Amino acid sequence: MWEELRPVGREASTGGYRRYAWTAADGELRAWFRAQAARRGLRYEVDRNGNQWAWAGDPAAGDAVVTGSHLDSVPDGGAFDGPLGVVSAFAALDVLRERGAVAARPVGVAGFADEEGARFGVACLGSRLSCGLFDPDLARGLRDADGVPLHRAMERAGLDPDAIGPDPERLAGIGAFVELHVEQGRALAGLGRPVGVGSVIRPHGRWRFDFRGRADHAGTTRIEDRRDPMLTYAHTVLAARKRARLAGALATFGKVDTEPNAVNAVPARVTAWLDCRADDPDALDALVAEIGRSAAERGERDGVSFALTRESHTPGVAFAPGLRDDIAARLGGAPVLPTGAGHDAGILASAVPTAMLYVRNPTGVSHAPDEHADEADCLAGVTALADVLEGMACR
Amino acid sequence: MWEELRPVGREASTGGYRRYAWTAADGELRAWFRAQAARRGLRYEVDRNGNQWAWAGDPAAGDAVVTGSHLDSVPDGGAFDGPLGVVSAFAALDVLRERGAVAARPVGVAGFADEEGARFGVACLGSRLSCGLFDPDLARGLRDADGVPLHRAMERAGLDPDAIGPDPERLAGIGAFVELHVEQGRALAGLGRPVGVGSVIRPHGRWRFDFRGRADHAGTTRIEDRRDPMLTYAHTVLAARKRARLAGALATFGKVDTEPNAVNAVPARVTAWLDCRADDPDALDALVAEIGRSAAERGERDGVSFALTRESHTPGVAFAPGLRDDIAARLGGAPVLPTGAGHDAGILASAVPTAMLYVRNPTGVSHAPDEHADEADCLAGVTALADVLEGMACR
Repeated sequence: MWEELRPVGREASTGGYRRYAWTAADGELRAWFRAQAARRGLRYEVDRNGNQWAWAGDPAAGDAVVTGSHLDSVPDGGAFDGPLGVVSAFAALDVLRERGAVAARPVGVAGFADEEGARFGVACLGSRLSCGLFDPDLARGLRDADGVPLHRAMERAGLDPDAIGPDPERLAGIGAFVELHVEQGRALAGLGRPVGVGSVIRPHGRWRFDFRGRADHAGTTRIEDRRDPMLTYAHTVLAARKRARLAGALATFGKVDTEPNAVNAVPARVTAWLDCRADDPDALDALVAEIGRSAAERGERDGVSFALTRESHTPGVAFAPGLRDDIAARLGGAPVLPTGAGHDAGILASAVPTAMLYVRNPTGVSHAPDEHADEADCLAGVTALADVLEGMACR
Repeated sequence: MWEELRPVGREASTGGYRRYAWTAADGELRAWFRAQAARRGLRYEVDRNGNQWAWAGDPAAGDAVVTGSHLDSVPDGGAFDGPLGVVSAFAALDVLRERGAVAARPVGVAGFADEEGARFGVACLGSRLSCGLFDPDLARGLRDADGVPLHRAMERAGLDPDAIGPDPERLAGIGAFVELHVEQGRALAGLGRPVGVGSVIRPHGRWRFDFRGRADHAGTTRIEDRRDPMLTYAHTVLAARKRARLAGALATFGKVDTEPNAVNAVPARVTAWLDCRADDPDALDALVAEIGRSAAERGERDGVSFALTRESHTPGVAFAPGLRDDIAARLGGAPVLPTGAGHDAGILASAVPTAMLYVRNPTGVSHAPDEHADEADCLAGVTALADVLEGMACR
């Protein structure tokens, strides 16, 4: 299966993947999913939000066991984030068939649409819409960097954007959801274990920092006459790093936008986005407030006005404790790990008992071309997922 | 004349001008120049590099006195930078006519092409080509942000890109060049004088700082496992500011480019451009070397590799001392000022005795929509320019 996926949406210059929702690359991935379902005689469906489903057994029977993940990527992402969970899901069904396991419950493979939010800015959009956690009107109006609205992009991909929205009936038929994902850190590598079980997703959010100064000629305006927002931004980047480390949390400025962004002009405006994650919501809020205070103080020195806007916020998610403990026990005491990354499983957990499996990532690199998992660990992940599905669905 | 220019290339959202070489806005400005020449019965010419000329008298007579500036702008530039020198040139010819002054030398108005370099990245391209200071083949191959090469852009504007290159005959016919320009600082405001005379252009240059780290997931990679080039960049911005202030020089990071520039990814790469100006070439080199050392040291701490590339370098220009002193005396002891900004006059000075006049800028704002000069000061500039032209060309 990997061989077919490898070239899709791959950017030759970086070796990374650019698989954005509802693009041609995404269409190829979706066709691949459909072909995998057909190859196994699984019933194929696309739900109202563009999520793909492949069913062994009749989902109308209810209490289904579902596994899967997503196929889209961040800009220049790695090969495993998302696809590993979908490939492993189909592979685990193959293992169950080889074992001659007979399912007592319907078993489904899900491929969620637009998990990374790389094109329209909202992560896990497909699962959010299904769970009623994102307004369909707002979703239809989201625009990509070229100004193309989501409704147009979905139409072009053959979907009906008027149909998107909550899908409670479908969710009611699911008894449990298990997502397998490559680890986005090095905890399993440190523990020497190929597979782990998810405990929680730490609360996280995105905040926009707007620094406004005054554009001036870089060659003639005296240092003391300037109101340079780049200075305030630079100070804030270093302050965020320092305070996050002291708090045992994560703070990242990964995106910055400058105006006019000319070599010979002091910027008029610098806008930057902070990604922040901490163990609990209070710690997260306190950390962001501290970073904001530091930015405001420095802005005063620099003559730069500063505004802080929360753009998104995801409260922490605790996966179903019973399911988690069952799975860890079934996998011979697999380690139970928290993560800072959002997942469709984190969204599904609002509606369905949900669990996650992680496959070891020896370098911890994620959202980058160098992301990696060893083949032996991927196979261990498939076996683990098959064991979990067998234990849950077959008796 | 101002009324006709005001709307051309104005961006409603910012109030700034976007007048880039060989665009539609530039074409309108060039048509305006031609119409001004026709209105006054001046001989109109476009030279091989696209610079515009309007002549009172026959330039073939030689020893011409030329004044003028440019009409293009930086992104979201002000109304005065460039156009003030061209408008004042035509207005000064009108004053001479009203005074009944009879020219003993040909008098020309020049409008130089692509002074700001906002589209193709090379400042003063029209005058550089004419003075043989830029390779025509390199120029033809320059590309704008959309990948359009200069030769195509010139062709579309009706020019012959095969003809560009040195123009020594034309330069040999010019006895002196005087450029009037809005001041790009507040020195005249501090001195309470409406008009000043240029002494030197300080040496300056542009350097590219490439910081390479490793892209990682912002939500899962521990602070201590990261190689985040944004940190190294932020440190370097603050170091540049501090060291420039200590050196009495100017250092600006006005342009930054991040990859992948995603909110939830530690950047793989940050590229930033330093604009640096100092009183002499040695001080400039020493300052940039210091900033580079600071970046490299911090990069080592951050696990970020760092490379420094000089992209352009303009040695200082001293304007013709005799001409400068004559003009200052003729204007009643006008103040003589250095500048950090490049100008066509700085290029022409390599081939022709050259001088500059500055008109007071009360706020010092430059390369921004708020750039301003009072009407009374603009009129004082016209009178000063007329006095200078009369003294040089009429007897």
